Amino acid sequence: MTSERIWTAALIVIGDEILSGRTQDRNVAHLASWLNVQGIGLAEVRIVGDRMDAIGEAVNTLRIRNDYLFTTGGIGPTHDDITVDAIAAALGLPVIEHPEARAILDGYYADRGGVSVARARMARTPEGASLIPNRVSGAPGIRIANIFIMAGVPHITAGMLDALTGTLEGGRPVVSGTIGCWVGESEVADLLRGAEKAHEGVAIGSYPFFREGRTGANFVVRSPDPALVEACLRDLSDALEAQGHRVVPGGI
Amino acid sequence: MTSERIWTAALIVIGDEILSGRTQDRNVAHLASWLNVQGIGLAEVRIVGDRMDAIGEAVNTLRIRNDYLFTTGGIGPTHDDITVDAIAAALGLPVIEHPEARAILDGYYADRGGVSVARARMARTPEGASLIPNRVSGAPGIRIANIFIMAGVPHITAGMLDALTGTLEGGRPVVSGTIGCWVGESEVADLLRGAEKAHEGVAIGSYPFFREGRTGANFVVRSPDPALVEACLRDLSDALEAQGHRVVPGGI
Repeated sequence: MTSERIWTAALIVIGDEILSGRTQDRNVAHLASWLNVQGIGLAEVRIVGDRMDAIGEAVNTLRIRNDYLFTTGGIGPTHDDITVDAIAAALGLPVIEHPEARAILDGYYADRGGVSVARARMARTPEGASLIPNRVSGAPGIRIANIFIMAGVPHITAGMLDALTGTLEGGRPVVSGTIGCWVGESEVADLLRGAEKAHEGVAIGSYPFFREGRTGANFVVRSPDPALVEACLRDLSDALEAQGHRVVPGGI
Repeated sequence: MTSERIWTAALIVIGDEILSGRTQDRNVAHLASWLNVQGIGLAEVRIVGDRMDAIGEAVNTLRIRNDYLFTTGGIGPTHDDITVDAIAAALGLPVIEHPEARAILDGYYADRGGVSVARARMARTPEGASLIPNRVSGAPGIRIANIFIMAGVPHITAGMLDALTGTLEGGRPVVSGTIGCWVGESEVADLLRGAEKAHEGVAIGSYPFFREGRTGANFVVRSPDPALVEACLRDLSDALEAQGHRVVPGGI
């Protein structure tokens, strides 16, 4: 197999409400799944509070070492929405009122009381940005360089990702296959390690559980090469069955 | 009000299964809530994959700038469980078999097939570590310096935190109060900003929603000083009602 370019992305989740425990994040898992389909791996996530310095540090570290950087949260109309200012500062760019964003807000709020000073905040972008369509509510997301600035409310975030589908360059999607077994993972640890070693280019994850009073585990084989995933799953199944364990294709 | 020492913690969530989107993290929100009660603020979270370098970098950055560092995940018996090795390497410490941990495993697995080589991995700790009781399954968590190494499976993590309750020095717990309003947050943005400015030491978060066909928002006031939270909530309620909005105590 020739070596392939691996595409990576990072995510910064911005919001005191996540760090206080008030709100359960839903965007990490959704973005991860969406990226997989685009052939891009989610390499790292950071969750930071509504603070200029914390956002700036994370942005400047992660945008450089990944192909893409996504952020969620902090782009609304209130005083705690500082994502645009923090990212502009991190990039050394001024913040401008984006004419196209302003026109979108003017249209959206035309029969909703008009664009107040607070609402106009949602038309502010770092200079040179383009917009990410928001099919759910008015205010658009923002793209500047390799950074995608998205809303925090999960169904709005999902709509923005939907608008980006197919527009980002990536590699082959990582595919995965799962088998399950009613066995303690510690009983088959050597076997798992051996299967991973025997198939260069796969990663095997072991996910134990306790259910119906019994111990079990699911084994997930991942690789961008579907044939490799299949071969590894087959060998792993054979090895488990040779030890007397019944294998459940697709997982338990 | 005299200035108080602020205690902070960071969390590293370790696991390819979170970054692939396979598993929805549950530990961030639980740890955040638990820390609040201990008077410790969760300052930052990083989610990294099962990679020595990624874990090591996060550990060495976060352990230094926080009072406490927690990790979840990667302490099981299989080949992808490398948290102990990565943290020991980051600290420049050897990994040893911890006699007390080994004794716990010997007891736990006595009538479960004994301690195999794979299971014995769960007795490995950085040299000089102490143990965090695991009331749910056998393998203990690990404390080394200001780092708390915990399991990734949420009910086991919760059990370990339960065992740590009251043992960590912290400050005054942050308390919060919430009011709700059927209003678009952009209509009251100035009012929120003003209320936060008028009460130094509080943070006000604004959390909009769309429900039952109407726009609303909850406003959360946070501070370690309960009197300050109450005073700010009262002023905020008065200001909202003066603008003709009905306020729902406790939030909507």
